[in-house]
Amino acid sequence: MTFWKSFFKPKTHTEKIQNINKNKKNFLLIHNFNNNGEIINIYLNINNNINLYDLEKLCDSVGWVRRPIKKVKIAINNSFLIAHLFYYCNNQKKLIGFARATSDHSFNATIWDVVIHPNFQSKGLGKELMTQVIKYLRFYDISTITLFADPHVTKFYKHLGFVIDPDGVKGMFWYPL
Amino acid sequence: MTFWKSFFKPKTHTEKIQNINKNKKNFLLIHNFNNNGEIINIYLNINNNINLYDLEKLCDSVGWVRRPIKKVKIAINNSFLIAHLFYYCNNQKKLIGFARATSDHSFNATIWDVVIHPNFQSKGLGKELMTQVIKYLRFYDISTITLFADPHVTKFYKHLGFVIDPDGVKGMFWYPL
Repeated sequence: MTFWKSFFKPKTHTEKIQNINKNKKNFLLIHNFNNNGEIINIYLNINNNINLYDLEKLCDSVGWVRRPIKKVKIAINNSFLIAHLFYYCNNQKKLIGFARATSDHSFNATIWDVVIHPNFQSKGLGKELMTQVIKYLRFYDISTITLFADPHVTKFYKHLGFVIDPDGVKGMFWYPL
Repeated sequence: MTFWKSFFKPKTHTEKIQNINKNKKNFLLIHNFNNNGEIINIYLNINNNINLYDLEKLCDSVGWVRRPIKKVKIAINNSFLIAHLFYYCNNQKKLIGFARATSDHSFNATIWDVVIHPNFQSKGLGKELMTQVIKYLRFYDISTITLFADPHVTKFYKHLGFVIDPDGVKGMFWYPL
């Protein structure tokens, strides 16, 4: 993933963000915290190499309606950006966060399916995930970054710099007449 | 474009929509009207074979800010759907309408850059263009069709079945903090 190499250079001003190289893949250590006396390192990766059944379990954990795996696979393969958060437990990768974006690779991007496992919510991980997603999109010079937010999460996105209905522009969804 | 062949079968209940085959390309005749005593046939095509300078002129005609051709090309190539309206004048193709959509090819699509040349507005062409765009997206089983509408065009989209902020879901745009 050349993006990490070129963009996420190790930052000396913070210990929280470190660029590490593991098994020739670039993961980004974005967070660590003490959970019942144990330090858990949370990593972020941006690529579409994701286990779809792990993703299904993650979506189940927040009560989302199940979607056909076949369609999920198509969506993953045709998203511009797939970001996921995970940690290792007994050498197994545990998926705990996810976001993706569709884009024209040039002007616009729309972020979909932002999810953090309930056991890892309220620890700043959603903010970290979204911050990296925005950095990635800005790195590709995408100026119009959009999303559609449920009422209970608009405040969260406002803190990240998102604005509702700027200049009166309205988000609209099509329904059959 | 196999889409036309499979989906836009000639409709006997309306004379307005006819599927025609010209030079082995499938164009859809969507409208004709009398302009100063002359009948003009307007065609619709869905593919990304579009002259970028013609598109620039079309965008100029409605006062949009110019965008770098190089970036426009990338956006066109990475859009799921490019729809354009045109007619022939002295054997030359004249571009008079345009719309595009980004998508994950599975669940979601977002429609961008809907434009009709001022000389051809208020003739039902915008409605025809959007109707075909929606049909195309529905044909690919895309259930969430979205867009961001300026205040003066929300009424137009409402007539097509678009709903503002359904269930309180808000369209949000990111701006640097």
